[in-house]
Amino acid sequence: MAANIFSEKHQILFYETDRTRRVTPGMLVNILMLASQDQSDELGLTSQKIHAQDLGWVVTQHLLTIERLPQLKEKVIVKTQATAYNHYFCYRDFWLEDQTGEVLAKMHSTFILMDQEKRKITKVPTELIAPYGSEYTPKVERVAEPEKFNLEKMAASKDYRVRFMDIDANQHVNNVHYFDWIVDALSEEFLINHQIKQVNVRYKREVHYGELVTSRVDQPLTVKDSKMSITHHQIVVDQQESCRAQCLWEKNENQ
Amino acid sequence: MAANIFSEKHQILFYETDRTRRVTPGMLVNILMLASQDQSDELGLTSQKIHAQDLGWVVTQHLLTIERLPQLKEKVIVKTQATAYNHYFCYRDFWLEDQTGEVLAKMHSTFILMDQEKRKITKVPTELIAPYGSEYTPKVERVAEPEKFNLEKMAASKDYRVRFMDIDANQHVNNVHYFDWIVDALSEEFLINHQIKQVNVRYKREVHYGELVTSRVDQPLTVKDSKMSITHHQIVVDQQESCRAQCLWEKNENQ
Repeated sequence: MAANIFSEKHQILFYETDRTRRVTPGMLVNILMLASQDQSDELGLTSQKIHAQDLGWVVTQHLLTIERLPQLKEKVIVKTQATAYNHYFCYRDFWLEDQTGEVLAKMHSTFILMDQEKRKITKVPTELIAPYGSEYTPKVERVAEPEKFNLEKMAASKDYRVRFMDIDANQHVNNVHYFDWIVDALSEEFLINHQIKQVNVRYKREVHYGELVTSRVDQPLTVKDSKMSITHHQIVVDQQESCRAQCLWEKNENQ
Repeated sequence: MAANIFSEKHQILFYETDRTRRVTPGMLVNILMLASQDQSDELGLTSQKIHAQDLGWVVTQHLLTIERLPQLKEKVIVKTQATAYNHYFCYRDFWLEDQTGEVLAKMHSTFILMDQEKRKITKVPTELIAPYGSEYTPKVERVAEPEKFNLEKMAASKDYRVRFMDIDANQHVNNVHYFDWIVDALSEEFLINHQIKQVNVRYKREVHYGELVTSRVDQPLTVKDSKMSITHHQIVVDQQESCRAQCLWEKNENQ
Protein backbone atom coordinates (compact mmCIF):
# COMPACT_ATOMS: atom_id res chain seq x y z
CA MET A 1 0.00 0.00 0.00
CA ALA A 2 1.44 3.36 -0.97
CA ALA A 3 1.66 6.02 1.73
CA ASN A 4 -0.98 8.75 1.86
CA ILE A 5 -0.24 11.89 -0.09
CA PHE A 6 -1.14 15.05 1.76
CA SER A 7 -1.51 18.29 -0.17
CA GLU A 8 -2.39 21.90 0.53
CA LYS A 9 -2.45 25.27 -1.18
CA HIS A 10 -0.25 28.24 -0.46
CA GLN A 11 0.28 31.67 -1.96
CA ILE A 12 3.77 33.18 -1.87
CA LEU A 13 3.91 36.08 0.61
CA PHE A 14 6.25 39.05 0.17
CA TYR A 15 8.30 38.11 3.21
CA GLU A 16 9.01 34.69 1.75
CA THR A 17 10.85 36.34 -1.16
CA ASP A 18 14.04 38.34 -1.51
CA ARG A 19 14.81 41.32 -3.73
CA THR A 20 14.76 39.06 -6.80
CA ARG A 21 11.02 38.60 -6.01
CA ARG A 22 11.59 34.85 -5.80
CA VAL A 23 11.21 32.64 -2.75
CA THR A 24 14.47 32.18 -0.83
CA PRO A 25 15.76 28.57 -0.63
CA GLY A 26 15.16 28.52 3.14
CA MET A 27 11.59 29.73 2.73
CA LEU A 28 11.02 27.13 0.01
CA VAL A 29 11.88 24.41 2.54
CA ASN A 30 9.60 26.05 5.11
CA ILE A 31 6.76 26.05 2.58
CA LEU A 32 7.35 22.37 1.75
CA MET A 33 7.38 21.50 5.45
CA LEU A 34 3.96 23.16 5.87
CA ALA A 35 2.51 20.03 4.30
CA SER A 36 4.22 17.58 6.66
CA GLN A 37 3.30 19.69 9.70
CA ASP A 38 -0.32 19.86 8.62
CA GLN A 39 -0.43 16.17 7.74
CA SER A 40 0.85 15.37 11.25
CA ASP A 41 -1.73 17.65 12.82
CA GLU A 42 -4.53 16.11 10.77
CA LEU A 43 -3.47 12.64 11.97
CA GLY A 44 -3.44 13.84 15.57
CA LEU A 45 0.34 13.43 15.72
CA THR A 46 0.96 17.07 16.61
CA SER A 47 4.45 18.21 17.57
CA GLN A 48 3.03 18.95 21.03
CA LYS A 49 2.02 15.31 21.40
CA ILE A 50 5.47 14.14 20.25
CA HIS A 51 7.21 16.60 22.60
CA ALA A 52 5.01 15.46 25.50
CA GLN A 53 6.72 12.07 25.08
CA ASP A 54 10.11 13.81 25.26
CA LEU A 55 10.63 13.14 21.57
CA GLY A 56 11.13 15.34 18.56
CA TRP A 57 11.41 14.80 14.79
CA VAL A 58 14.79 15.92 13.52
CA VAL A 59 15.93 16.24 9.90
CA THR A 60 19.28 14.62 9.09
CA GLN A 61 19.30 15.23 5.33
CA HIS A 62 17.44 17.13 2.62
CA LEU A 63 17.99 16.67 -1.09
CA LEU A 64 16.21 19.61 -2.68
CA THR A 65 15.90 19.94 -6.44
CA ILE A 66 14.49 23.13 -7.92
CA GLU A 67 13.07 23.57 -11.39
CA ARG A 68 11.96 27.13 -10.77
CA LEU A 69 11.67 29.18 -7.58
CA PRO A 70 8.10 30.45 -7.24
CA GLN A 71 7.56 34.18 -7.42
CA LEU A 72 5.86 36.74 -5.21
CA LYS A 73 2.06 36.12 -5.09
CA GLU A 74 2.28 32.89 -7.08
CA LYS A 75 -0.24 30.24 -6.06
CA VAL A 76 1.35 26.86 -5.41
CA ILE A 77 0.38 23.39 -4.22
CA VAL A 78 2.54 21.60 -1.66
CA LYS A 79 2.46 17.81 -1.48
CA THR A 80 4.13 15.31 0.80
CA GLN A 81 4.29 11.57 1.35
CA ALA A 82 6.01 9.70 4.20
CA THR A 83 7.24 6.98 1.86
CA ALA A 84 9.14 4.49 4.03
CA TYR A 85 10.73 3.87 7.40
CA ASN A 86 12.99 1.43 9.22
CA HIS A 87 13.94 1.16 12.89
CA TYR A 88 15.65 4.54 13.01
CA PHE A 89 15.04 6.45 9.78
CA CYS A 90 11.92 7.85 8.16
CA TYR A 91 11.94 8.96 4.54
CA ARG A 92 9.65 11.60 3.16
CA ASP A 93 9.12 13.18 -0.26
CA PHE A 94 7.87 16.67 -0.95
CA TRP A 95 6.73 18.38 -4.15
CA LEU A 96 5.84 21.91 -5.02
CA GLU A 97 3.60 22.42 -8.03
CA ASP A 98 2.35 25.48 -9.83
CA GLN A 99 -1.28 26.09 -10.77
CA THR A 100 -0.96 23.98 -13.93
CA GLY A 101 0.42 20.99 -12.04
CA GLU A 102 3.99 21.56 -13.22
CA VAL A 103 6.56 20.53 -10.61
CA LEU A 104 8.58 23.53 -9.39
CA ALA A 105 10.61 21.70 -6.74
CA LYS A 106 11.09 18.30 -5.17
CA MET A 107 12.67 17.33 -1.87
CA HIS A 108 13.63 13.99 -0.40
CA SER A 109 14.24 14.16 3.35
CA THR A 110 15.43 11.85 6.10
CA PHE A 111 14.00 12.24 9.59
CA ILE A 112 14.96 10.63 12.87
CA LEU A 113 13.26 10.71 16.26
CA MET A 114 15.37 12.33 18.94
CA ASP A 115 15.11 11.64 22.66
CA GLN A 116 14.92 15.21 23.97
CA GLU A 117 16.49 14.32 27.30
CA LYS A 118 19.45 12.24 26.08
CA ARG A 119 19.78 14.22 22.81
CA LYS A 120 20.14 10.86 21.06
CA ILE A 121 18.44 9.04 18.21
CA THR A 122 15.71 6.66 19.35
CA LYS A 123 13.75 3.83 17.70
CA VAL A 124 10.63 4.95 15.85
CA PRO A 125 7.53 3.54 17.61
CA THR A 126 5.10 2.10 15.06
CA GLU A 127 2.23 4.20 16.40
CA LEU A 128 4.07 7.39 15.45
CA ILE A 129 4.67 6.40 11.84
CA ALA A 130 1.98 3.88 10.81
CA PRO A 131 -0.80 6.51 10.57
CA TYR A 132 1.01 8.13 7.62
CA GLY A 133 0.63 4.88 5.65
CA SER A 134 4.43 4.75 5.51
CA GLU A 135 5.89 1.36 4.52
CA TYR A 136 8.30 -0.50 6.76
CA THR A 137 11.53 -1.53 5.09
CA PRO A 138 14.55 -3.10 6.79
CA LYS A 139 16.73 -1.32 4.22
CA VAL A 140 18.62 1.82 5.21
CA GLU A 141 18.66 4.22 2.27
CA ARG A 142 21.96 5.44 0.90
CA VAL A 143 21.24 8.97 -0.25
CA ALA A 144 24.40 10.43 -1.81
CA GLU A 145 26.13 12.60 0.78
CA PRO A 146 27.50 16.04 -0.02
CA GLU A 147 31.23 15.82 -0.76
CA LYS A 148 33.60 16.47 2.12
CA PHE A 149 34.57 20.11 2.47
CA ASN A 150 38.15 20.73 1.46
CA LEU A 151 39.49 23.43 3.77
CA GLU A 152 42.36 24.18 1.40
CA LYS A 153 39.84 25.23 -1.21
CA MET A 154 37.89 27.56 1.09
CA ALA A 155 37.14 30.83 -0.72
CA ALA A 156 35.04 32.63 1.91
CA SER A 157 33.70 32.20 5.41
CA LYS A 158 31.19 34.19 7.44
CA ASP A 159 30.28 34.04 11.11
CA TYR A 160 26.77 34.10 12.57
CA ARG A 161 25.65 34.13 16.18
CA VAL A 162 22.63 31.86 16.75
CA ARG A 163 19.61 33.99 17.65
CA PHE A 164 16.66 33.35 19.89
CA MET A 165 14.35 33.05 16.87
CA ASP A 166 16.58 30.44 15.17
CA ILE A 167 15.74 27.88 17.87
CA ASP A 168 12.78 25.54 17.46
CA ALA A 169 10.79 23.34 19.85
CA ASN A 170 13.66 20.79 19.77
CA GLN A 171 15.82 23.44 21.52
CA HIS A 172 18.28 23.62 18.64
CA VAL A 173 18.62 25.58 15.42
CA ASN A 174 15.87 24.61 13.01
CA ASN A 175 17.17 22.86 9.89
CA VAL A 176 15.80 25.61 7.67
CA HIS A 177 18.03 28.35 9.14
CA TYR A 178 21.13 26.57 7.80
CA PHE A 179 19.96 27.42 4.29
CA ASP A 180 20.42 31.15 4.99
CA TRP A 181 23.93 30.54 6.35
CA ILE A 182 24.79 28.38 3.33
CA VAL A 183 23.45 30.81 0.72
CA ASP A 184 24.77 33.97 2.41
CA ALA A 185 28.37 32.62 2.39
CA LEU A 186 28.40 33.32 -1.35
CA SER A 187 28.94 36.81 -2.77
CA GLU A 188 26.09 39.17 -3.63
CA GLU A 189 27.26 39.23 -7.25
CA PHE A 190 27.13 35.43 -7.48
CA LEU A 191 23.68 35.24 -5.87
CA ILE A 192 22.19 37.87 -8.16
CA ASN A 193 23.56 36.17 -11.27
CA HIS A 194 22.72 32.56 -10.47
CA GLN A 195 19.67 30.44 -9.77
CA ILE A 196 19.90 27.67 -7.22
CA LYS A 197 19.02 24.29 -8.76
CA GLN A 198 19.92 21.74 -6.11
CA VAL A 199 20.90 21.57 -2.44
CA ASN A 200 22.10 18.41 -0.75
CA VAL A 201 22.39 19.17 2.94
CA ARG A 202 23.47 16.73 5.62
CA TYR A 203 23.05 17.68 9.28
CA LYS A 204 25.72 16.20 11.55
CA ARG A 205 25.51 17.89 14.95
CA GLU A 206 23.00 20.10 16.70
CA VAL A 207 23.65 23.84 16.96
CA HIS A 208 22.42 25.67 20.07
CA TYR A 209 21.36 29.13 21.17
CA GLY A 210 24.16 31.66 21.41
CA GLU A 211 26.76 29.54 19.60
CA LEU A 212 28.98 31.13 16.97
CA VAL A 213 28.57 29.44 13.63
CA THR A 214 31.02 29.69 10.73
CA SER A 215 29.67 29.15 7.23
CA ARG A 216 32.41 28.14 4.78
CA VAL A 217 32.24 27.92 1.01
CA ASP A 218 34.72 27.12 -1.75
CA GLN A 219 35.14 28.83 -5.12
CA PRO A 220 32.18 27.98 -7.40
CA LEU A 221 33.36 25.28 -9.78
CA THR A 222 31.98 25.67 -13.29
CA VAL A 223 30.83 22.44 -14.87
CA LYS A 224 32.65 22.17 -18.22
CA ASP A 225 30.71 23.44 -21.25
CA SER A 226 27.65 24.29 -19.19
CA LYS A 227 25.97 27.12 -17.32
CA MET A 228 26.12 25.14 -14.10
CA SER A 229 28.43 25.61 -11.12
CA ILE A 230 28.93 23.56 -7.97
CA THR A 231 29.68 24.93 -4.50
CA HIS A 232 30.63 23.01 -1.39
CA HIS A 233 29.68 24.25 2.05
CA GLN A 234 30.47 23.50 5.64
CA ILE A 235 28.89 24.81 8.83
CA VAL A 236 31.30 24.68 11.74
CA VAL A 237 30.93 25.34 15.48
CA ASP A 238 34.10 25.25 17.61
CA GLN A 239 36.01 23.62 14.74
CA GLN A 240 33.49 20.78 14.63
CA GLU A 241 31.44 20.11 11.53
CA SER A 242 27.73 20.66 12.21
CA CYS A 243 26.57 20.42 8.64
CA ARG A 244 27.87 19.81 5.15
CA ALA A 245 26.19 20.82 1.91
CA GLN A 246 26.67 20.84 -1.82
CA CYS A 247 24.77 23.17 -4.15
CA LEU A 248 24.23 23.31 -7.88
CA TRP A 249 23.69 26.70 -9.54
CA GLU A 250 22.67 27.85 -13.01
CA LYS A 251 23.91 31.10 -14.47
CA ASN A 252 21.13 33.49 -15.46
CA GLU A 253 20.14 33.63 -19.12
CA ASN A 254 21.13 37.24 -19.71
CA GLN A 255 24.71 36.74 -18.49
CA MET B 1 -13.91 61.40 3.58
CA ALA B 2 -12.24 58.65 5.59
CA ALA B 3 -9.56 56.59 3.86
CA ASN B 4 -10.41 53.15 2.55
CA ILE B 5 -9.91 50.26 4.92
CA PHE B 6 -8.33 47.24 3.28
CA SER B 7 -8.57 43.88 4.99
CA GLU B 8 -7.50 40.30 4.36
CA LYS B 9 -7.35 36.96 6.10
CA HIS B 10 -4.26 35.08 7.18
CA GLN B 11 -3.52 31.91 9.09
CA ILE B 12 -0.38 31.76 11.25
CA LEU B 13 2.22 29.43 9.68
CA PHE B 14 4.73 27.46 11.77
CA TYR B 15 7.68 29.44 10.42
CA GLU B 16 6.10 32.70 11.59
CA THR B 17 6.33 31.48 15.19
CA ASP B 18 9.17 30.72 17.59
CA ARG B 19 9.51 27.99 20.19
CA THR B 20 6.85 29.68 22.35
CA ARG B 21 4.43 28.87 19.45
CA ARG B 22 3.61 32.57 19.18
CA VAL B 23 4.34 34.83 16.23
CA THR B 24 7.67 36.66 16.54
CA PRO B 25 7.43 40.48 16.70
CA GLY B 26 9.18 40.76 13.32
CA MET B 27 6.77 38.33 11.70
CA LEU B 28 3.84 40.20 13.24
CA VAL B 29 4.97 43.32 11.39
CA ASN B 30 5.40 41.31 8.19
CA ILE B 31 1.85 39.99 8.55
CA LEU B 32 0.47 43.50 9.13
CA MET B 33 2.33 44.76 6.08
CA LEU B 34 0.69 42.07 3.94
CA ALA B 35 -2.41 44.25 3.97
CA SER B 36 -0.65 47.41 2.79
CA GLN B 37 1.21 45.51 0.07
CA ASP B 38 -2.00 43.92 -1.17
CA GLN B 39 -3.92 47.18 -0.96
CA SER B 40 -1.24 48.82 -3.13
CA ASP B 41 -1.38 45.97 -5.63
CA GLU B 42 -5.17 46.17 -5.79
CA LEU B 43 -4.95 49.89 -6.55
CA GLY B 44 -2.40 49.23 -9.29
CA LEU B 45 0.31 50.98 -7.24
CA THR B 46 2.59 47.94 -7.16
CA SER B 47 6.09 48.25 -5.76
CA GLN B 48 7.34 47.49 -9.28
CA LYS B 49 5.50 50.53 -10.59
CA ILE B 50 6.95 52.70 -7.80
CA HIS B 51 10.46 51.36 -8.38
CA ALA B 52 10.14 51.98 -12.12
CA GLN B 53 9.91 55.67 -11.20
CA ASP B 54 13.13 55.31 -9.16
CA LEU B 55 11.12 55.66 -5.96
CA GLY B 56 10.51 53.41 -2.98
CA TRP B 57 8.31 53.55 0.12
CA VAL B 58 10.44 53.57 3.27
CA VAL B 59 9.28 53.24 6.87
CA THR B 60 10.67 55.84 9.27
CA GLN B 61 8.71 54.83 12.38
CA HIS B 62 6.45 52.07 13.70
CA LEU B 63 4.51 52.25 16.94
CA LEU B 64 3.36 48.69 17.51
CA THR B 65 1.03 47.81 20.40
CA ILE B 66 0.30 44.18 21.15
CA GLU B 67 -2.61 42.84 23.16
CA ARG B 68 -1.77 39.23 22.44
CA LEU B 69 0.61 37.61 19.95
CA PRO B 70 -1.34 35.20 17.75
CA GLN B 71 -0.48 31.53 18.03
CA LEU B 72 0.45 28.83 15.57
CA LYS B 73 -2.46 28.06 13.17
CA GLU B 74 -4.61 30.88 14.53
CA LYS B 75 -6.80 32.55 11.90
CA VAL B 76 -6.46 36.32 11.90
CA ILE B 77 -7.71 39.34 9.97
CA VAL B 78 -5.29 42.08 8.96
CA LYS B 79 -6.62 45.57 8.31
CA THR B 80 -4.96 48.76 7.16
CA GLN B 81 -5.86 52.33 6.38
CA ALA B 82 -3.62 55.04 4.88
CA THR B 83 -5.06 57.72 7.13
CA ALA B 84 -3.32 60.97 6.21
CA TYR B 85 -0.41 62.53 4.36
CA ASN B 86 1.42 65.82 3.92
CA HIS B 87 4.18 66.87 1.50
CA TYR B 88 6.69 64.36 2.81
CA PHE B 89 5.04 61.97 5.27
CA CYS B 90 2.33 59.35 4.92
CA TYR B 91 0.62 57.89 7.97
CA ARG B 92 -0.90 54.46 8.04
CA ASP B 93 -2.72 52.40 10.66
CA PHE B 94 -2.77 48.62 10.91
CA TRP B 95 -4.87 46.24 13.01
CA LEU B 96 -4.74 42.55 13.62
CA GLU B 97 -7.97 40.92 14.78
CA ASP B 98 -8.82 37.42 15.86
CA GLN B 99 -11.79 35.44 14.57
CA THR B 100 -14.17 37.12 17.04
CA GLY B 101 -13.11 40.63 15.97
CA GLU B 102 -11.02 41.22 19.07
CA VAL B 103 -7.98 43.42 18.37
CA LEU B 104 -4.71 41.51 18.92
CA ALA B 105 -2.35 44.25 17.77
CA LYS B 106 -2.30 47.77 16.38
CA MET B 107 0.42 49.62 14.54
CA HIS B 108 0.79 53.25 13.51
CA SER B 109 3.49 53.77 10.89
CA THR B 110 5.12 56.66 9.10
CA PHE B 111 6.27 56.20 5.51
CA ILE B 112 8.29 58.45 3.24
CA LEU B 113 9.06 58.18 -0.46
CA MET B 114 12.75 57.77 -1.18
CA ASP B 115 14.45 58.76 -4.39
CA GLN B 116 16.38 55.55 -5.13
CA GLU B 117 19.15 57.35 -6.99
CA LYS B 118 19.84 60.18 -4.55
CA ARG B 119 18.89 58.05 -1.48
CA LYS B 120 16.93 61.10 -0.26
CA ILE B 121 13.38 61.83 0.81
CA THR B 122 11.20 63.20 -1.97
CA LYS B 123 7.80 64.92 -2.15
CA VAL B 124 4.85 62.54 -2.35
CA PRO B 125 3.11 62.95 -5.75
CA THR B 126 -0.67 63.10 -5.30
CA GLU B 127 -1.23 60.28 -7.80
CA LEU B 128 0.69 57.87 -5.58
CA ILE B 129 -1.34 58.58 -2.45
CA ALA B 130 -4.79 59.80 -3.49
CA PRO B 131 -6.00 56.34 -4.60
CA TYR B 132 -5.83 55.15 -0.97
CA GLY B 133 -8.43 57.77 0.00
CA SER B 134 -5.80 59.24 2.31
CA GLU B 135 -6.50 62.77 3.55
CA TYR B 136 -4.12 65.64 2.92
CA THR B 137 -3.11 67.55 6.04
CA PRO B 138 -0.49 70.28 6.23
CA LYS B 139 0.24 69.09 9.77
CA VAL B 140 3.33 66.98 10.48
CA GLU B 141 2.51 64.40 13.14
CA ARG B 142 4.52 64.29 16.33
CA VAL B 143 4.61 60.63 17.25
CA ALA B 144 6.53 60.23 20.51
CA GLU B 145 10.09 59.14 19.71
CA PRO B 146 11.84 56.34 21.58
CA GLU B 147 14.04 57.80 24.32
CA LYS B 148 17.68 58.42 23.48
CA PHE B 149 19.89 55.41 24.20
CA ASN B 150 22.15 56.02 27.18
CA LEU B 151 25.44 54.29 26.43
CA GLU B 152 26.39 54.32 30.11
CA LYS B 153 23.40 52.12 30.85
CA MET B 154 24.18 49.54 28.14
CA ALA B 155 23.76 46.02 29.55
CA ALA B 156 24.41 43.93 26.42
CA SER B 157 25.32 44.28 22.78
CA LYS B 158 25.40 41.79 19.93
CA ASP B 159 26.82 42.04 16.43
CA TYR B 160 25.15 40.91 13.21
CA ARG B 161 26.44 40.92 9.67
CA VAL B 162 23.76 42.01 7.17
CA ARG B 163 22.86 39.06 4.95
CA PHE B 164 21.78 38.86 1.34
CA MET B 165 18.23 37.95 2.38
CA ASP B 166 17.92 40.97 4.73
CA ILE B 167 17.97 43.36 1.77
CA ASP B 168 14.73 44.42 0.07
CA ALA B 169 13.88 46.03 -3.26
CA ASN B 170 15.02 49.40 -1.84
CA GLN B 171 18.56 47.94 -1.66
CA HIS B 172 18.74 48.31 2.10
CA VAL B 173 17.81 46.24 5.15
CA ASN B 174 14.06 45.84 5.34
CA ASN B 175 12.55 47.55 8.40
CA VAL B 176 11.25 44.23 9.71
CA HIS B 177 14.71 42.68 10.16
CA TYR B 178 15.55 45.28 12.83
CA PHE B 179 12.95 43.64 15.08
CA ASP B 180 15.03 40.43 15.24
CA TRP B 181 18.16 42.43 16.12
CA ILE B 182 16.24 44.36 18.79
CA VAL B 183 14.62 41.32 20.40
CA ASP B 184 17.70 39.08 20.21
CA ALA B 185 19.82 41.61 22.13
CA LEU B 186 17.91 40.52 25.25
CA SER B 187 18.74 37.32 27.14
CA GLU B 188 17.01 34.01 26.44
CA GLU B 189 15.76 33.92 30.03
CA PHE B 190 14.17 37.38 29.68
CA LEU B 191 12.53 36.51 26.35
CA ILE B 192 11.04 33.28 27.64
CA ASN B 193 9.60 34.95 30.72
CA HIS B 194 8.18 38.10 29.14
CA GLN B 195 5.60 39.04 26.55
CA ILE B 196 6.26 41.99 24.30
CA LYS B 197 3.52 44.61 24.61
CA GLN B 198 4.82 47.62 22.71
CA VAL B 199 7.62 48.56 20.32
CA ASN B 200 8.33 52.13 19.28
CA VAL B 201 10.97 51.99 16.59
CA ARG B 202 12.45 54.96 14.78
CA TYR B 203 14.62 54.37 11.71
CA LYS B 204 17.35 56.97 11.26
CA ARG B 205 19.80 55.77 8.62
CA GLU B 206 19.78 53.02 6.02
CA VAL B 207 21.76 49.84 6.63
CA HIS B 208 23.33 48.08 3.64
CA TYR B 209 24.42 44.63 2.56
CA GLY B 210 27.52 43.30 4.32
CA GLU B 211 27.59 45.99 7.02
CA LEU B 212 28.26 44.99 10.60
CA VAL B 213 25.39 46.00 12.86
CA THR B 214 25.57 46.28 16.64
CA SER B 215 22.35 45.88 18.61
CA ARG B 216 22.57 47.48 22.05
CA VAL B 217 20.16 47.18 24.94
CA ASP B 218 20.06 48.48 28.50
CA GLN B 219 19.01 46.65 31.67
CA PRO B 220 15.21 46.09 31.67
CA LEU B 221 13.72 48.73 33.94
CA THR B 222 10.80 47.44 35.99
CA VAL B 223 7.88 49.83 36.19
CA LYS B 224 7.15 50.32 39.91
CA ASP B 225 4.41 48.09 41.35
CA SER B 226 3.72 46.44 38.03
CA LYS B 227 4.61 43.44 35.89
CA MET B 228 5.88 45.74 33.16
CA SER B 229 9.46 46.48 32.16
CA ILE B 230 10.94 48.95 29.70
CA THR B 231 13.99 48.35 27.51
CA HIS B 232 15.82 50.86 25.34
CA HIS B 233 17.59 49.80 22.17
CA GLN B 234 19.99 51.21 19.66
CA ILE B 235 21.18 49.80 16.33
CA VAL B 236 24.57 51.15 15.40
CA VAL B 237 26.73 50.86 12.26
CA ASP B 238 30.24 52.35 12.39
CA GLN B 239 29.36 54.18 15.62
CA GLN B 240 26.46 55.91 13.89
CA GLU B 241 22.91 55.40 15.10
CA SER B 242 20.80 53.65 12.45
CA CYS B 243 17.79 53.00 14.59
CA ARG B 244 16.48 53.62 18.09
CA ALA B 245 13.74 51.69 19.83
CA GLN B 246 11.90 51.39 23.11
CA CYS B 247 10.00 48.27 24.15
CA LEU B 248 7.46 47.50 26.84
CA TRP B 249 7.31 43.97 28.27
CA GLU B 250 4.96 42.12 30.58
CA LYS B 251 6.18 39.38 32.88
CA ASN B 252 4.42 36.05 32.33
CA GLU B 253 1.60 35.13 34.70
CA ASN B 254 3.28 32.08 36.21
CA GLN B 255 6.42 33.98 37.27
